[in-house]
Amino acid sequence: MATSPMKTIGAGELRAQNAGETVTLAGWVARRRDHGGVIFIDLRDASGIVQVVLNPDEAPASEEVLHGLRSEYCIQVTGTVRPRPEGTANQELPTGAVELAAHGLVVLSPSAPLPFQIDERVDIDEGLRLQYRYLDMRRTRMAGNLRARSAAIGAMRRVMDRGDFLEVETPTLIASTPEGARDMLVPSRLRPGHFYALPQSPQLFKQLLMIGGVERYYQLAKCYRDEDFRADRQIEFTQLDFEGSFWGQDEVLDVLEQIVVEVVQELRGEEIELPIARISYADAMEKYGTDKPDLRFGMEIVDLSDLFADTEFKAFAGVLGSQGTVRGINGGALGLARSGLDRLVERAQELGARGLVWMIVQEDGSLRSPVAKFLSEREIAAIKGAFDASPGDTLLIVADEAKVVTSVLGQLRLTVGQPEDSDELAFVFVLDFPVFDVNDDGSLSPAHHPFTAPADVDELASNPETAISQSYDLVLNGSELGSGSVRIHDPEIQAKVFEVMNIGAEDARSRFGWFLEALRYGTPPHAGFAIGVDRMVSILRGEPNIREIIPFPKTQTGADPLTGSPGRVEEDQLFQLGIDVRPEVRIGWAEAEEDAGA
Amino acid sequence: MATSPMKTIGAGELRAQNAGETVTLAGWVARRRDHGGVIFIDLRDASGIVQVVLNPDEAPASEEVLHGLRSEYCIQVTGTVRPRPEGTANQELPTGAVELAAHGLVVLSPSAPLPFQIDERVDIDEGLRLQYRYLDMRRTRMAGNLRARSAAIGAMRRVMDRGDFLEVETPTLIASTPEGARDMLVPSRLRPGHFYALPQSPQLFKQLLMIGGVERYYQLAKCYRDEDFRADRQIEFTQLDFEGSFWGQDEVLDVLEQIVVEVVQELRGEEIELPIARISYADAMEKYGTDKPDLRFGMEIVDLSDLFADTEFKAFAGVLGSQGTVRGINGGALGLARSGLDRLVERAQELGARGLVWMIVQEDGSLRSPVAKFLSEREIAAIKGAFDASPGDTLLIVADEAKVVTSVLGQLRLTVGQPEDSDELAFVFVLDFPVFDVNDDGSLSPAHHPFTAPADVDELASNPETAISQSYDLVLNGSELGSGSVRIHDPEIQAKVFEVMNIGAEDARSRFGWFLEALRYGTPPHAGFAIGVDRMVSILRGEPNIREIIPFPKTQTGADPLTGSPGRVEEDQLFQLGIDVRPEVRIGWAEAEEDAGA
Repeated sequence: MATSPMKTIGAGELRAQNAGETVTLAGWVARRRDHGGVIFIDLRDASGIVQVVLNPDEAPASEEVLHGLRSEYCIQVTGTVRPRPEGTANQELPTGAVELAAHGLVVLSPSAPLPFQIDERVDIDEGLRLQYRYLDMRRTRMAGNLRARSAAIGAMRRVMDRGDFLEVETPTLIASTPEGARDMLVPSRLRPGHFYALPQSPQLFKQLLMIGGVERYYQLAKCYRDEDFRADRQIEFTQLDFEGSFWGQDEVLDVLEQIVVEVVQELRGEEIELPIARISYADAMEKYGTDKPDLRFGMEIVDLSDLFADTEFKAFAGVLGSQGTVRGINGGALGLARSGLDRLVERAQELGARGLVWMIVQEDGSLRSPVAKFLSEREIAAIKGAFDASPGDTLLIVADEAKVVTSVLGQLRLTVGQPEDSDELAFVFVLDFPVFDVNDDGSLSPAHHPFTAPADVDELASNPETAISQSYDLVLNGSELGSGSVRIHDPEIQAKVFEVMNIGAEDARSRFGWFLEALRYGTPPHAGFAIGVDRMVSILRGEPNIREIIPFPKTQTGADPLTGSPGRVEEDQLFQLGIDVRPEVRIGWAEAEEDAGA
Repeated sequence: MATSPMKTIGAGELRAQNAGETVTLAGWVARRRDHGGVIFIDLRDASGIVQVVLNPDEAPASEEVLHGLRSEYCIQVTGTVRPRPEGTANQELPTGAVELAAHGLVVLSPSAPLPFQIDERVDIDEGLRLQYRYLDMRRTRMAGNLRARSAAIGAMRRVMDRGDFLEVETPTLIASTPEGARDMLVPSRLRPGHFYALPQSPQLFKQLLMIGGVERYYQLAKCYRDEDFRADRQIEFTQLDFEGSFWGQDEVLDVLEQIVVEVVQELRGEEIELPIARISYADAMEKYGTDKPDLRFGMEIVDLSDLFADTEFKAFAGVLGSQGTVRGINGGALGLARSGLDRLVERAQELGARGLVWMIVQEDGSLRSPVAKFLSEREIAAIKGAFDASPGDTLLIVADEAKVVTSVLGQLRLTVGQPEDSDELAFVFVLDFPVFDVNDDGSLSPAHHPFTAPADVDELASNPETAISQSYDLVLNGSELGSGSVRIHDPEIQAKVFEVMNIGAEDARSRFGWFLEALRYGTPPHAGFAIGVDRMVSILRGEPNIREIIPFPKTQTGADPLTGSPGRVEEDQLFQLGIDVRPEVRIGWAEAEEDAGA
């Protein structure tokens, strides 16, 4: 910690070997105790906490000042470091061997009574924490999260520096495109009635950098997405965005592995073993029912369709007779009572299954299950074999069309299998995503932006619903940390992809004309990735929500309880921008104000 | 440069010691020459240029491919590195000792005919360069500027890391405040008719971080200012923003000195001698007529008022008789003909002076000047003494009220004195700025934001027009690189400052209420600074304009010639935001389209 005349050393830096030194500390009153006229203060600053002893006899300040000291007063103390009296050392505090005997004290700033205690470990309402974020930041949790976020970004930069990546800033006031219905807009004052958009990602600009010959680019890019808030999204968020020319997928994954190793080492002091596991999208869906599998545990989905080919159990037979499938997971020794099993059945139904069959392997090898009576000896043996089941294991089986079975079992797997309070980290690359998602009505929606290279452009044209793209995700403990792809660098392939995606030539020109023009000038093959910084740090810190990692986040309605944004603005400011608030919105305001008695 | 199977080494990395190696290069055709059937190509990539020899007899590719190769084709070449034939080495190229004898060639992407040549050193219209920025980036100038910008930011981060600064991102969707008439606005979809603002600076958020106990903060912050474009401004720009608690001015200047040393070392390999010069605002105005003096040259303003106290020259006597002043600069051996001197007089008048008196010191010690006949021997001797003038020197004198004299001489000083094509760097800190600028009508405008600490709050209240604030600028070669201040940490002083600045208590509450609330909870003394990254890099690179440093800048009308932003957006997108384009703006559009024959 850099020093100043106002503060010669950090409170948390004092150790036994500093005994005898005269130092000046500055920080906040974390705790104050009076013992027989002597005042003990835990002084906290960014470096930690140390005990300060204020003995009025040694007159560090007037009695008025001493007795006025309250929690979170910002104070400066000059004194002598000394060993704590025999038997009073605090082993839990890095500074616990010493204390500061104060001979001078200045109150730099008093504090008003606090809306919540800084020290307490009790939970405080998140709304209050956000309203007083600056006080929340003095607490161990947020202070640690801010440090971790800064350290993680530093670790990412080290990897980028080692790889000779240029840090390039792409613009944040960009063109809005017709497909950008979720673009956030910025009205222009110099061209009233015209708008910039805030970027959802630097995608096209980083591709321009590749065309421009930059070859290795990175940026910690602020991105914006004005979508309905999901539990763990923010309208503004930060990505580590990088791209390389003359690259394929392998080069991107190699850089990602370095980033994972460096960031985990920095935040947790752990070695991640390389290579990181890789799984195809198809395998992930098949085995784990999701494209972001949590690999901290196995519990793979097992296909039982062949096993039940001749079953007497009508529900399974019916499904199998109509192109459906029967699959299940071995939930292990769940030890659930009947009510717990019923809740799993309900959960499966909520998730879209018609039902859930549970079976519990008994000590004698038989199966306890509502459907046991329909199962033959051969089937029972085969089931136990397929699940590698031991006595006590709970088997969960769903029969339906494949898409439903996969999705339901994937989520039940998390419900019964996902470890709580686990320190384990399971990174995995998910590869070979399909080009299209197949909708329930059989129609196709592009799974990625239209600049993603298909694995085979002819295959894409002939079998679009099964065609694979050169795209990949990085997943940690069941959460997607980011995604990337090899990009199209050939204007003709780009045109074909637009065609397959039902984007007409004229449409493509009006939306991306300037980019298609750029592609014509010797575009190098290139590939890249973007990692959600806050998501990654939150998981590594064991935080349930990215709001815990973001210094000043918005709530789920996009509001900032601290500053009150978003708000209304003056008429004449809007006038200059050539815009107006629509009359019906104003009427809504007036009514709301009336209702509020205003 | 990291490698890939597509490219085993950078073109610019090949040296004599690589002779004999088989390598694969990938890059762009910078130049192509045919010599007796053999094709020579200058292959360029991010690392540099190397000569490639394509001998059709060694069949590196089909004749069709070889003869189709054009400028800026993106190609991949495999071949053997060999010394260039005796006498053909190119000393000017780092790779000039070798060439690559190609035995394989693949065209990765052809290029359409170029809108301008990449290689040429001729000037290209800036509009065209911006429209094809990705091609402009392949030119030496822009490629070098992008690398320099990245390197400069890296150097800044090293200083921040050494000082244990946390990198913290503050929000970019913030509350608009009533005084923020120049705020850029972002309509909210979740609260139609309400707006976020984009930050003009992270000022209040970084102060909240100090209140939150962060103690050392930095960020490369994107900021937005929707003002009419000046020659060298952009609506979005990047600042290195930092702040420290328990800091005064000295700690800020110390960090700035480290940044200057590190960045100059990084970009120019030069040592900047410390300490950096310091000058008070008052002295800078007095000696150089500006608060951002170019100290690469002296040419200080000299006050001649006493000297002319009893002058016969009526113009001077009149000015001195009405509280005015007579001052001048010694422009040195300008060697101007009468026409050149006349142009200086005109320039002075344009700048607001009633006139300009020039005097040229003759070999015989006399003065050649239109006013020479009014000057006494004593005055002539005194003038020469005051200017320390030698034969050949041109003296330029202005008589008027002090403000005009200072301003005109400050600008004339630059006109006649500012060196062209100088490599010199003259950094200077300008200190002790006034709290208020005095307007022409005598009214006061705050010179800085209202959170700047006054040097003495009582002085501020009693003599606001002369009161000094604890603020400081960093100036390089006559350009302001950034500014900072010690901030107010005492809510009572903050209230007094608002009062002196005519911001009423109610007004302050509605504008900054949430911040005033935060100040109440033990705010530490703190201070900070913000440096304009692009300005600093542009001067160190000898570029005339920050647009040369920004990868994708806007023009002076805020437009992006590449993507066409800002543009119009769909009705239903605006509808969801609760806003509308004003009817009169639409009528303007319709008329413009009619005029255009649409």
